[in-house]
Amino acid sequence: MRAKKQKLEHYSPVDSDYFPRYAGIPTFMRLPSTFEYNELNIGILGIPWDGGVTERAGARHGPRSVREASSFNRNEHGTTGVRVFDIVNIADIGDVPTNPVNRNATLESIKNFTKNLLDHNVFPLSVGGDHLVTFPILQGMQEKGPLALVHFDAHTDTWDVDFADEKLTHGTPFRRAVENQLIIPDKMIQIGLRELIHSKNDLKFCRENNISILTMEDIKTNGLKQVIEKIKSVIGDHNTYISFDIDVLDPAFAPGTGTPEVGGLTTHEALLILRGLVGCNIIGSDLVEVAPNLDISNITSLAGATILYELLHLMVYPFVNNAFHT
Amino acid sequence: MRAKKQKLEHYSPVDSDYFPRYAGIPTFMRLPSTFEYNELNIGILGIPWDGGVTERAGARHGPRSVREASSFNRNEHGTTGVRVFDIVNIADIGDVPTNPVNRNATLESIKNFTKNLLDHNVFPLSVGGDHLVTFPILQGMQEKGPLALVHFDAHTDTWDVDFADEKLTHGTPFRRAVENQLIIPDKMIQIGLRELIHSKNDLKFCRENNISILTMEDIKTNGLKQVIEKIKSVIGDHNTYISFDIDVLDPAFAPGTGTPEVGGLTTHEALLILRGLVGCNIIGSDLVEVAPNLDISNITSLAGATILYELLHLMVYPFVNNAFHT
Amino acid sequence: MRAKKQKLEHYSPVDSDYFPRYAGIPTFMRLPSTFEYNELNIGILGIPWDGGVTERAGARHGPRSVREASSFNRNEHGTTGVRVFDIVNIADIGDVPTNPVNRNATLESIKNFTKNLLDHNVFPLSVGGDHLVTFPILQGMQEKGPLALVHFDAHTDTWDVDFADEKLTHGTPFRRAVENQLIIPDKMIQIGLRELIHSKNDLKFCRENNISILTMEDIKTNGLKQVIEKIKSVIGDHNTYISFDIDVLDPAFAPGTGTPEVGGLTTHEALLILRGLVGCNIIGSDLVEVAPNLDISNITSLAGATILYELLHLMVYPFVNNAFHT
Amino acid sequence: MRAKKQKLEHYSPVDSDYFPRYAGIPTFMRLPSTFEYNELNIGILGIPWDGGVTERAGARHGPRSVREASSFNRNEHGTTGVRVFDIVNIADIGDVPTNPVNRNATLESIKNFTKNLLDHNVFPLSVGGDHLVTFPILQGMQEKGPLALVHFDAHTDTWDVDFADEKLTHGTPFRRAVENQLIIPDKMIQIGLRELIHSKNDLKFCRENNISILTMEDIKTNGLKQVIEKIKSVIGDHNTYISFDIDVLDPAFAPGTGTPEVGGLTTHEALLILRGLVGCNIIGSDLVEVAPNLDISNITSLAGATILYELLHLMVYPFVNNAFHT
Amino acid sequence: MRAKKQKLEHYSPVDSDYFPRYAGIPTFMRLPSTFEYNELNIGILGIPWDGGVTERAGARHGPRSVREASSFNRNEHGTTGVRVFDIVNIADIGDVPTNPVNRNATLESIKNFTKNLLDHNVFPLSVGGDHLVTFPILQGMQEKGPLALVHFDAHTDTWDVDFADEKLTHGTPFRRAVENQLIIPDKMIQIGLRELIHSKNDLKFCRENNISILTMEDIKTNGLKQVIEKIKSVIGDHNTYISFDIDVLDPAFAPGTGTPEVGGLTTHEALLILRGLVGCNIIGSDLVEVAPNLDISNITSLAGATILYELLHLMVYPFVNNAFHT
Amino acid sequence: MRAKKQKLEHYSPVDSDYFPRYAGIPTFMRLPSTFEYNELNIGILGIPWDGGVTERAGARHGPRSVREASSFNRNEHGTTGVRVFDIVNIADIGDVPTNPVNRNATLESIKNFTKNLLDHNVFPLSVGGDHLVTFPILQGMQEKGPLALVHFDAHTDTWDVDFADEKLTHGTPFRRAVENQLIIPDKMIQIGLRELIHSKNDLKFCRENNISILTMEDIKTNGLKQVIEKIKSVIGDHNTYISFDIDVLDPAFAPGTGTPEVGGLTTHEALLILRGLVGCNIIGSDLVEVAPNLDISNITSLAGATILYELLHLMVYPFVNNAFHT
Repeated sequence: MRAKKQKLEHYSPVDSDYFPRYAGIPTFMRLPSTFEYNELNIGILGIPWDGGVTERAGARHGPRSVREASSFNRNEHGTTGVRVFDIVNIADIGDVPTNPVNRNATLESIKNFTKNLLDHNVFPLSVGGDHLVTFPILQGMQEKGPLALVHFDAHTDTWDVDFADEKLTHGTPFRRAVENQLIIPDKMIQIGLRELIHSKNDLKFCRENNISILTMEDIKTNGLKQVIEKIKSVIGDHNTYISFDIDVLDPAFAPGTGTPEVGGLTTHEALLILRGLVGCNIIGSDLVEVAPNLDISNITSLAGATILYELLHLMVYPFVNNAFHT
Repeated sequence: MRAKKQKLEHYSPVDSDYFPRYAGIPTFMRLPSTFEYNELNIGILGIPWDGGVTERAGARHGPRSVREASSFNRNEHGTTGVRVFDIVNIADIGDVPTNPVNRNATLESIKNFTKNLLDHNVFPLSVGGDHLVTFPILQGMQEKGPLALVHFDAHTDTWDVDFADEKLTHGTPFRRAVENQLIIPDKMIQIGLRELIHSKNDLKFCRENNISILTMEDIKTNGLKQVIEKIKSVIGDHNTYISFDIDVLDPAFAPGTGTPEVGGLTTHEALLILRGLVGCNIIGSDLVEVAPNLDISNITSLAGATILYELLHLMVYPFVNNAFHT
Repeated sequence: MRAKKQKLEHYSPVDSDYFPRYAGIPTFMRLPSTFEYNELNIGILGIPWDGGVTERAGARHGPRSVREASSFNRNEHGTTGVRVFDIVNIADIGDVPTNPVNRNATLESIKNFTKNLLDHNVFPLSVGGDHLVTFPILQGMQEKGPLALVHFDAHTDTWDVDFADEKLTHGTPFRRAVENQLIIPDKMIQIGLRELIHSKNDLKFCRENNISILTMEDIKTNGLKQVIEKIKSVIGDHNTYISFDIDVLDPAFAPGTGTPEVGGLTTHEALLILRGLVGCNIIGSDLVEVAPNLDISNITSLAGATILYELLHLMVYPFVNNAFHT
Repeated sequence: MRAKKQKLEHYSPVDSDYFPRYAGIPTFMRLPSTFEYNELNIGILGIPWDGGVTERAGARHGPRSVREASSFNRNEHGTTGVRVFDIVNIADIGDVPTNPVNRNATLESIKNFTKNLLDHNVFPLSVGGDHLVTFPILQGMQEKGPLALVHFDAHTDTWDVDFADEKLTHGTPFRRAVENQLIIPDKMIQIGLRELIHSKNDLKFCRENNISILTMEDIKTNGLKQVIEKIKSVIGDHNTYISFDIDVLDPAFAPGTGTPEVGGLTTHEALLILRGLVGCNIIGSDLVEVAPNLDISNITSLAGATILYELLHLMVYPFVNNAFHT
Repeated sequence: MRAKKQKLEHYSPVDSDYFPRYAGIPTFMRLPSTFEYNELNIGILGIPWDGGVTERAGARHGPRSVREASSFNRNEHGTTGVRVFDIVNIADIGDVPTNPVNRNATLESIKNFTKNLLDHNVFPLSVGGDHLVTFPILQGMQEKGPLALVHFDAHTDTWDVDFADEKLTHGTPFRRAVENQLIIPDKMIQIGLRELIHSKNDLKFCRENNISILTMEDIKTNGLKQVIEKIKSVIGDHNTYISFDIDVLDPAFAPGTGTPEVGGLTTHEALLILRGLVGCNIIGSDLVEVAPNLDISNITSLAGATILYELLHLMVYPFVNNAFHT
Repeated sequence: MRAKKQKLEHYSPVDSDYFPRYAGIPTFMRLPSTFEYNELNIGILGIPWDGGVTERAGARHGPRSVREASSFNRNEHGTTGVRVFDIVNIADIGDVPTNPVNRNATLESIKNFTKNLLDHNVFPLSVGGDHLVTFPILQGMQEKGPLALVHFDAHTDTWDVDFADEKLTHGTPFRRAVENQLIIPDKMIQIGLRELIHSKNDLKFCRENNISILTMEDIKTNGLKQVIEKIKSVIGDHNTYISFDIDVLDPAFAPGTGTPEVGGLTTHEALLILRGLVGCNIIGSDLVEVAPNLDISNITSLAGATILYELLHLMVYPFVNNAFHT
């Protein structure tokens, strides 16, 4: 059972009856911002960095743009009736310090920032940033791991090296995480991979490590119900992390990303899969690869913000009905 | 049986063999414009006003942008073979006078404009504007009511108040319409509502008044055939009004709207539902919340214009085979 | 001599050596946000409202977009060497509560918000919002007035009524301000008016009240030096307010505004005029009519943010070398 | 002295006190549309065709987009005080029939359309379309010619052939016009040509025919006053046609055109030159090469619409104080 | 069995380990460019021309924009494991010479270019350009015909004439091809036609000639599996050409096209249909009507490039396991 | 006197009479591409890398987008009559291999690539990429140095460190170059610096090293003639490199760049300054910081391509009238 801190009134979104949703300083979900962790259960943070990107950049601007779009987020979840902001204390805890020209320094900063959160018993919900950021996050969460992992993506991100000998790019985080025992390969599942890839070898690592895969064709063929069951059977009630790469969506639904692949999920399908995971033991999650400079009419950021709300809902759900413990 | 006026040749779209579709003054569907109602059966009009919007503005520009996009509309309906412009007299009757800074004056103007149309036995097909405009339209149609209502939307629009005590915003028109006996609640059905809401209370009014609801999940679960049957069973052969908020579509299909919600209908699904209503007794309809300043490559306006054509088709269909009566 | 409060270290922009300029919650100029006025000399605020607009809307989104663009603002003024954030305490004090569908309620809210600031001896630098907001701001500053006024604009904004009988729109604020003795007409000067007008009558009010006018042709003919001298001679050392409508710039430099007029100032010309006013007694100012939904690549917001910095510089300058008084 | 028809009240823009400028069917300058020429002095028409373009297409959409932008046009000219719509009868007379795949048929149609106008004693103010349309317009005006010509452009448009042997493209209209004695070469002046060219031969034809040229460098070096004097000295009081290619403006001011060249005029400079021609004997004019598909935030269309108003003003000016003759 | 030339190493995409995908001169799929046909099996070419378009232009820019987007194409096909570039020699053979103002000259040029390719035993995969280009391509392939044809499109493109008497526009290529015995009507199938049409007569030609049709409603009703079976049963193992008009996709997935029709295929559906045709005898294909000037965030070009890769895969597949013959 | 290689016919742009400018594989200026240096005098190359950027990324896409826009470049220079492609052999030599995640590897690659060019007696004209690329280029040109330098920029780019201790970012290249004796400080001049800075210290390095500076205010005050004279007096007839950062232009003229600063040069002013340098001894140059993902309607790329042509013209000019030496 998850420890709950005393619920404080002021960790609530601004009242939209007095401030329109487009008003005010745009924090995540119009929550208060704070640098004080003691009262929090969940911290929403940005990681404005895309130094691991090997294609089109721009994910460094993801946190601000998802903040802006998350102003549309509502207070109550329609399927479960859960009012996330009424259950535990949630805030916008700002951005991780990053260095746009220095990979190692930034990865170290992300790891430390995350570890510090966990040390304060605050669970991280982060907005990237490119997908490489997931690796140092998982390092920072090492005390809770090794973790089960649900990975939404068009790509495997399990390459060994990129650009001949680069071990740390947005194409490699999950192999590094497996190698470092941060995640349990046979409790890891990848959802939404596309069929057009570099090479069959890309999947060799996954197969050898018993990582489960549901390609787009699997999903379209078998339907969402089976997808949800498969995910649940893989992760069980283990401590689980969800990493959601926005490029799992089709470019029609999420054009604003650096490495789009046609033939992806609709946003509605993604929402339904996430809602199917209610009750799972999600202790952290991230949304990555939103690149607003490539977006149109902010629809990618809006999709991202809605995904973010669902991820938050999954992380809050275990606290429902829990007594609080300070 | 509906009274038909003498069909006059010149109420036809401009001949696209001599004027390309992108040529000429852009009237709705490239029809003649007129301020003379006596010869008309159906008037297509604009309501360039978004003074009821509480989020992002721009629907004031909807009429012009749908006019432009409706140049692509064709003459014959593929499913039924009906050639709408050959059956009755239809024209672009211009825009309702509106006042961008005065809500009451504008609502009064819309009501009077509509009433005057009905007094001339002209049925209104209007393009908003924000969703608040539907309330004064229904007021102007009072003599034909109370009406059955088919309401496509991502949102309920049945709030009691918005911004603490505002009774008239784009979030309230249908509660006002029910309160004023303009529509019959148990002959009203809402299609496409999304699952993320402010509060369960939002739906209380609908339930208490026996308003039918088909959420996106209902639609995806049950399929379009059942959706169509449900609508027909609710409205029967009653005088029916259709109000189509473009935000019922997913933002990938209709990004140009003020309050987008991910996880909506595809345009094709919307078209199929509308086509399923052929033969119903539709006496008026509107398309609202197209905000071209938020659109991309005019795809929202094009979706809107195609919806508009389907609404027109539904309104013309009852005249097929009818003798005319002057 | 202006009273200075004790300078506190933490009212400074975030250090860009650890957080890239595009990182973090976007407050104005990357300053701390606060709702506590006692320590402040100058408050930068947003007024997210465009209910006075009679053309294209969108200025309601101005505050957020100028916040975002103001991340580029630097710490030291190149011409004077003044480091504004080292002199007095400046913060982002959030947005005025506004109601998108209620003009009177919003105008009252703006007036009260401003008055409360002045009561705490905080000078307002605001970002609109449409130009109507300047009227209630001036009402809130009544205790400091009547004021001299420097008005940058493509339009006179001194109409008596708009839409036949509307006394309060973005075309009327300065006539209302004159009528209410909030500004001194012969200490008011308008800069950048364009030559295409509705009627010669538009200028009659200005002439009858001895309001000075420098049209674009005057400016191009006489040069910036004379413009600056003329402004200074009009306002003298009187308590002065500057109202800067972004549409004074040419649409090439500021496309993102609701009522653009070609043939306007370049951004460089505007900056040079403002820099020429160093030493004047500026006690409040605003930037209005930035409509980011009509902008391209954010260049209007960037121009606006740079203008904002210059306005701040003018408001801080009088504090230079002043001892502080708590 | 120019013959004036009886001024009729209803040839006036829609009253913007009851219909916002963005409302209604977008005719040129919000004028009535008519196909009846007898009452008119000036007809504003569109030529939606770009079949002469050899670079990027899109000018076929110019007429609609300039119509839309011309809603911003005002009633009174600021420099002269002339209220153009109070002097003579002006209307939107629709578009010339064009054929997007057939050059000869379209050129013939334009010529005949123009001739018919002149036969009704209506002077043409047209919006293209690409620059080739000027040639058939001048053919249609043959009875008034040969004409003096003021030609604003980044390019000479006096090539002999394009694409090896094409005599009729948007690069050749003025050579064709000279060859056909439609314009008088030594009463022709080109303004705004840029310095980067295919070959010195481009200018040979101009020199051999005594066509005057003012390059951008000439204009920047000598100033606008001398430009105006030069134009006046070239055209004298001859029957004059003005052809304004929007690409004479710098791409910052007019990005929406098919063959942009950096280093052009500002819109303000163009306006000042046109205003300097008040009193010249302008009997026809056109605005060409506005390609809205390449535009951003409609600023090119707005610049075009403002230029169009100045051209109209020049064409109306000779009627001021004239008695009417039916 | 298809003749295979000796596989040469250098006909391979640039190595993305040393050159990022966004680097270098953008050839199709990052292949070498060559004008030497002897070594090639398949040539990818552009046809930068849209002189047959009767709606919105821009497809002339399709080849360059698909080249750019095709940099994302990968080396191995996920479903079949085929590595297309390892099987036969494929190159970017540049663009066909075209004349933007001369239809006949361009059609002749396309025909000759294609014929010359076939004479060198090179099969063409081309990127348009508007749909009229398919007619001269088929003329150039006459020696291999008459061909079976798979035609993806929202429109029939089997009109007799357009604009009253134009026999050659992008609405007529397939009637011309049938009339010229270039394709076998009862081995021709059209996929994705939409329901809103000009007239029932549009389909008369198809019916009379036994051309098969699968409308969007057929596809949605019967499912993709039946679609694939139907196509295969129509074309059998005949020499087959695939013509893919990007407007078969819904505008949400492919906004960048001149004549969009809502209610189309998703990109994933299109990919699945194409993958279903593996093993068919495809000897040529084209992708047409990509108009990047109307695109947003390049998603149409990306969809086009992915379709192009699938078409290439279908054309290469027959060579798998074949010995080479010089 | 500069050595000239034998002029070969085929190093010429594609003939635009047979291939429209928008046709074909987009090389720089429609020149042939080659990897063979022996015949060349000047190589135009791309450096697709922005790993030194500390603000908004995207300059990695500069080379392709300038290639595309350079299709508009013409053959003859209007001021001098020089036909650059007729004088010496110029080609598109492709892009430098870069690694998006590895700064050191990329800088090394650029240095070696440049050195190899010089070893073949080919002078480099490169398109970045961010401004850090100038440092390794200058390293590669060391044998020709130390060089005089003309530096167009809004920023000094002479910081010592960025992000606390980063010695190599796009804010530091010129201090590194001075420290490494690659350029001669008192033969270095910076043009277009803006007035808003971080700190007066920024300029200290320049002053201590006798680097000349012309700020925007200097330029507007003194005029272009004096600017040109000043530059010439600084560089004399020394071996000179020109580095042109596109952000020296005002954002209205060049919005597509990562660190825009309002109040910059117009494109015309920049062209006139460059033309004033005809006859100077320019042996290499670069255009940097074009970020097409931030551009609008490609106007920044077009401005960049035109600047590129002027830089080429300056580099070719010394060869005019020179006999060739192989």
